[in-house]
Amino acid sequence: MSDVKMNIAVAQSGGPTCAINASLAGVYKCAVDSGKFNKIYGALNGITGVMECRYVDLSDSIKNDDDLELLIHTPSTALGSCRYKLPDAHENRSDYEKIIESFRKFNIGMFFYIGGNDSMDTVMKLSHYFTEHNIDIKVIGIPKTIDNDLCGTDHSPGFGSAAKYVLSTIQEIVRDSRVYGVDSVTVIEVMGRHAGWLTASSCCLRANGESAPHLIYLPEGRFSREKFIEDVKKVRKEHKAVIVAVSEGVCTDDGNFAAEAYQSGKLDAFGHKYLSGIGKYLENLVSEVFKCKVRSIELNVMQRCSAHLASATDLEESEKIGAAAVDAAISGKTGCVMTYVRESNEPYTISIGSEDASSAANHEKHFPKEWLNSDENDILPEAIEYFLPLIQGEVHTKMKNGMPVHFAIK
Amino acid sequence: MSDVKMNIAVAQSGGPTCAINASLAGVYKCAVDSGKFNKIYGALNGITGVMECRYVDLSDSIKNDDDLELLIHTPSTALGSCRYKLPDAHENRSDYEKIIESFRKFNIGMFFYIGGNDSMDTVMKLSHYFTEHNIDIKVIGIPKTIDNDLCGTDHSPGFGSAAKYVLSTIQEIVRDSRVYGVDSVTVIEVMGRHAGWLTASSCCLRANGESAPHLIYLPEGRFSREKFIEDVKKVRKEHKAVIVAVSEGVCTDDGNFAAEAYQSGKLDAFGHKYLSGIGKYLENLVSEVFKCKVRSIELNVMQRCSAHLASATDLEESEKIGAAAVDAAISGKTGCVMTYVRESNEPYTISIGSEDASSAANHEKHFPKEWLNSDENDILPEAIEYFLPLIQGEVHTKMKNGMPVHFAIK
Repeated sequence: MSDVKMNIAVAQSGGPTCAINASLAGVYKCAVDSGKFNKIYGALNGITGVMECRYVDLSDSIKNDDDLELLIHTPSTALGSCRYKLPDAHENRSDYEKIIESFRKFNIGMFFYIGGNDSMDTVMKLSHYFTEHNIDIKVIGIPKTIDNDLCGTDHSPGFGSAAKYVLSTIQEIVRDSRVYGVDSVTVIEVMGRHAGWLTASSCCLRANGESAPHLIYLPEGRFSREKFIEDVKKVRKEHKAVIVAVSEGVCTDDGNFAAEAYQSGKLDAFGHKYLSGIGKYLENLVSEVFKCKVRSIELNVMQRCSAHLASATDLEESEKIGAAAVDAAISGKTGCVMTYVRESNEPYTISIGSEDASSAANHEKHFPKEWLNSDENDILPEAIEYFLPLIQGEVHTKMKNGMPVHFAIK
Repeated sequence: MSDVKMNIAVAQSGGPTCAINASLAGVYKCAVDSGKFNKIYGALNGITGVMECRYVDLSDSIKNDDDLELLIHTPSTALGSCRYKLPDAHENRSDYEKIIESFRKFNIGMFFYIGGNDSMDTVMKLSHYFTEHNIDIKVIGIPKTIDNDLCGTDHSPGFGSAAKYVLSTIQEIVRDSRVYGVDSVTVIEVMGRHAGWLTASSCCLRANGESAPHLIYLPEGRFSREKFIEDVKKVRKEHKAVIVAVSEGVCTDDGNFAAEAYQSGKLDAFGHKYLSGIGKYLENLVSEVFKCKVRSIELNVMQRCSAHLASATDLEESEKIGAAAVDAAISGKTGCVMTYVRESNEPYTISIGSEDASSAANHEKHFPKEWLNSDENDILPEAIEYFLPLIQGEVHTKMKNGMPVHFAIK
């Protein structure tokens, strides 16, 4: 072994969350504390930054514990992100060669990739390629997604904070919806293309005695225009101010997105349909059918960037899983994604494990059918026990002039 | 004077804010502390509750300081609200007779009405009627509106909290908008039909060195489709991730709402055009013209009900102005609306005064043209000095199971 310590690199990919920077902080702190590395690089804009050798020395931006604290509480991706999928190595090796060249040039022996299932595909492909070609660069995936749809882990870093935002905001919207003595329907559109975890988490309000949301629709449940109208008709008999929580990706029986007619048909970089509109669609439907006061609310990007409402549990765990990734690489692991293993609910304890990255790559973990009621318009109490520990604890955002302050790469 | 102490009543009206319950708490506490009254009634759903004798004894719900604290930090209107405008007394006296009967039945000698400019119309009409008919019931208005468009007061209770939400949220959205290395435009739609104060407040981010929002459009400024396209073209040369803040009520040169074509033409109970859609309208426009990544975000009711992000200054002042209303009535005043008078900016100090309710009723205070830049697409630094004191201080929301807990009338 040479006397020169190796460098390591970390990058972030996919959609932002409130906890992805906590994982970055975990990687950084654990790597520094280990004393085993020379430089800790951040690659800008994910794997594309690696290919283009766009690295920053993180010690230039993280100079002390205050900087680290600020990073932990900063939403979105401090290093930027990308939506780039590596081609199959057997079809096109050029990306792989660029990555190897970049890592060699910067003496990088470990690469940590914080991202969702598309990013775990990168971890899997890269590590396979390195192993096949006898290149000793460790590649470890650190999960993150507000969708909570990653396989192999009990839950995903970033999810608890998004759920806490959704729950707190719906509770406040409930107050707002009840001011006038008139019948009303409020439709709240929550992110989730194929997995309804985030929308489903809204059921936790019942742990505080709140009846709302009165209807909850997930992509995993049956949905049709007619069923929705019947459901609302029923709920309106019991509640003056009806609250509906609906996943953006709710589908009709034929497998099409329910709000398709309202959509532009644009595709994102991964070929996913760009969704918006189920809320507006249902708002118009209610207005037409029931002629009552109706409003739709899209929680939009706030559900993934409202760091001031982050779950303290989520941030702590996200930092830990980042640190655990460094430990795993040091112990010789590669090609794996770090996971949470729930040990018990009362008291809530988790341990951190790892799975082969292929278990997370390109798969989606759906909300379990057995936690849906038989009408598939509500969530069963069993799910509350799963969700509740993930949203515990409040954070204190650093404020300046009455507004939040965030970390920035120098 | 009879030995039986009189009762008093308080009610809330118009759109909810995060601070309207703090004013209710101020009325309640000051009235209790004065020792001058027997019962302190809350009338449910504003003046309609008065007419229908729907009163609650507030001491049943506010039993201790903890209850009072919870009330202060609960968004929306604890007593419910209404959108009801009294007819002119000369045309139709029946509402007035109902109100007098109700007040007499419950021995109510003072009535405090927390609301916006439509509610101050009620204060004005009622007090005139009582004076004309020699009825000794005091009527005092307590202002509230997130729009900040009430005349006669430096600023309105509820506005500072809404501004703090808008600012904090835009700061977080800025983080979210910068993750991908691609050119993008984010359009943030802020409430404000005719007054752009809330949208304008977004300029305060510059006090923290933030360049966003890069374009700010108010109903008070000139706007056209062509001008908007030119503005965006210019800003895109300097900023990859362009942030636009726009009031829902932005109008084109012909005086029509800019997004009219997108709207349903529905009217609310006051005959106001129901607005939604300027954000979506501009999103589609940008997408068409610039073919770049674009997203619109409607801050929706969250800007008026996100109590967890309330301004501590706003809540303190709102409680004080409620208390001052009671003092004013005790000192014999009637037919007035309480006001904030700004004494100085550094240190920021206000006093509480009062104006004749007619000064606030039915009028709208517009954002001053002299604080708009010459292109009318941005706010001048002078405005920051006005806004900044109003958003200072953070609150601590009571949480249970990781979610906010609110006050409810028993």
